[in-house]
Amino acid sequence: MNRKIQITVIGDSEDIEVNNRLAYEVGKFVAQNGWVLINGGNGGIMSAVSKGAFENGGIVVSVTNWSEMDKGHDYATIKIPTGIGWARNSVNILAGDVIIGIGGKSGTLSEYAYAWCYQKPIIALSTTGGWSSKLAGENIDDRYQRPIVGADNLEDFKTKLNEIVKNLNSD
Amino acid sequence: MNRKIQITVIGDSEDIEVNNRLAYEVGKFVAQNGWVLINGGNGGIMSAVSKGAFENGGIVVSVTNWSEMDKGHDYATIKIPTGIGWARNSVNILAGDVIIGIGGKSGTLSEYAYAWCYQKPIIALSTTGGWSSKLAGENIDDRYQRPIVGADNLEDFKTKLNEIVKNLNSD
Amino acid sequence: MNRKIQITVIGDSEDIEVNNRLAYEVGKFVAQNGWVLINGGNGGIMSAVSKGAFENGGIVVSVTNWSEMDKGHDYATIKIPTGIGWARNSVNILAGDVIIGIGGKSGTLSEYAYAWCYQKPIIALSTTGGWSSKLAGENIDDRYQRPIVGADNLEDFKTKLNEIVKNLNSD
Amino acid sequence: MNRKIQITVIGDSEDIEVNNRLAYEVGKFVAQNGWVLINGGNGGIMSAVSKGAFENGGIVVSVTNWSEMDKGHDYATIKIPTGIGWARNSVNILAGDVIIGIGGKSGTLSEYAYAWCYQKPIIALSTTGGWSSKLAGENIDDRYQRPIVGADNLEDFKTKLNEIVKNLNSD
Repeated sequence: MNRKIQITVIGDSEDIEVNNRLAYEVGKFVAQNGWVLINGGNGGIMSAVSKGAFENGGIVVSVTNWSEMDKGHDYATIKIPTGIGWARNSVNILAGDVIIGIGGKSGTLSEYAYAWCYQKPIIALSTTGGWSSKLAGENIDDRYQRPIVGADNLEDFKTKLNEIVKNLNSD
Repeated sequence: MNRKIQITVIGDSEDIEVNNRLAYEVGKFVAQNGWVLINGGNGGIMSAVSKGAFENGGIVVSVTNWSEMDKGHDYATIKIPTGIGWARNSVNILAGDVIIGIGGKSGTLSEYAYAWCYQKPIIALSTTGGWSSKLAGENIDDRYQRPIVGADNLEDFKTKLNEIVKNLNSD
Repeated sequence: MNRKIQITVIGDSEDIEVNNRLAYEVGKFVAQNGWVLINGGNGGIMSAVSKGAFENGGIVVSVTNWSEMDKGHDYATIKIPTGIGWARNSVNILAGDVIIGIGGKSGTLSEYAYAWCYQKPIIALSTTGGWSSKLAGENIDDRYQRPIVGADNLEDFKTKLNEIVKNLNSD
Repeated sequence: MNRKIQITVIGDSEDIEVNNRLAYEVGKFVAQNGWVLINGGNGGIMSAVSKGAFENGGIVVSVTNWSEMDKGHDYATIKIPTGIGWARNSVNILAGDVIIGIGGKSGTLSEYAYAWCYQKPIIALSTTGGWSSKLAGENIDDRYQRPIVGADNLEDFKTKLNEIVKNLNSD
């Protein structure tokens, strides 16, 4: 396989300072590992995680709901303006090998639900409030017995993401 | 406005007998009121609610994930094969004036989340398990202060849906 | 099969009086046969054909590019607001058993192309200008040897559509 | 603007040897300029142009119709599996600053039509047959007076693409 590992990060589009700082570090970690960051292109977590990856030399792909190329934050290397509105929530989940959630409201919840449908490995940052705190360690339904992985802090997150990616590569 | 009131019903694609019986009555009630039933075209709740509407003279529209016209249950008057996979969950929520949930797993959860994003009135049948039981009476996030309406039984559901539709018409 | 025959009509969104008059008759014919009319919900041909069907007792479904229920013309019985922008051109082609083209610019051309990809029977009203005149009687590529059927006037159209629908029913 | 210039290449999914050789050179040229190549991920032109970009150090993004990450050719740096079927033709046009066509059947025609709708600059390789030969130098409709640019050979193509990109940057 020639393509790179792709990590999708989901979360609030509004700014929550403490979560944004964590998101920046998540993006930095993705970039430092040579993985591609997939994000939705809006503000809040999406902007912060992309800034972290972009400023550390990573490739950042914004998969946006708009038709216009240059809407959204400016930390993207590549823009995919889907033009399909919020149906794009399905697309940026399909585009991730692993899904990472930070906080999050109803839009993020739709993405957690898709990630579960598509049987993607998911890590929820458990201290970040919103749906990430509610779903960390939980099963969304009884079809699979692989709960959403909760990560309590940045180090815990790094360890768990490394483990998941190692397993992807050995598949 | 010439068009009819459209009621979208969401829920499990697998058969759960007690929920299917309730769904049949929900579909019958939609038909008896002259409303159009929107559903996803799969089995389980989608088939049962459509049977209830179809056998009682209603118009049933299946908005399916497939490209093929004639996949899915056979209680539809009209088929809209979107060909866009599970991104269609966004479409059948947009196509409802009111959203009704019965039971439900991760796919249904993505639809509840979209319904909240799009500020649709939502009724969750609270005794049907799955995400409908979990979300009845709850707010999905703090952006709106209009909780998902829980309905405890068929009569309660009918009263509450009538109320919501009356308000739509007076808008 | 319980569902009704579905006829999708495509064409200009701007008003061209002579084409609109023809479109009205096309819609009327669809309604008189008990078929469902699928259209894109915009102005021009879409509005005119829907008016013809609606005023003659037909079921009209507008499959629109918007997210809002009540944008577009008011001759629809049912609205499916896809929220996916112009990607919906693929959807309203998938939703037709037969595709009818009247005039048309680049949007209509994308729909003719999809109709060919999906191997739908297509009738182009050959005197209506635009892409319908260009493609009547033509093959879009060499994968299939079933040219787009040209119809020179309303009677010719009715004969040819009846023939196609009769063949659908005998499949 | 931090993001890179994105060039979408469209064309046949079947192999046509002479066109594939040209496509390889087109991909190489895109990579050598530091632009990102967007393609649909299938065989034929899509595979050949991606090989040309990939083997010359470029970033290649496959925007595919599938839900699965690893379907399609293996010359992609990044995969965006949209899961929306052929509605993705709209997406990979929206994702290009410039659209390049080589040969092409009905799928390619839908993409030319979208490119015109979205007012994208378009270059058609005029000697490659299919819809690219038919549309080179033509207007798809009368809404804009900026014909599809025909390029007769590789050098002509390079000159014209450079010119278009220079104009994008000066906007």
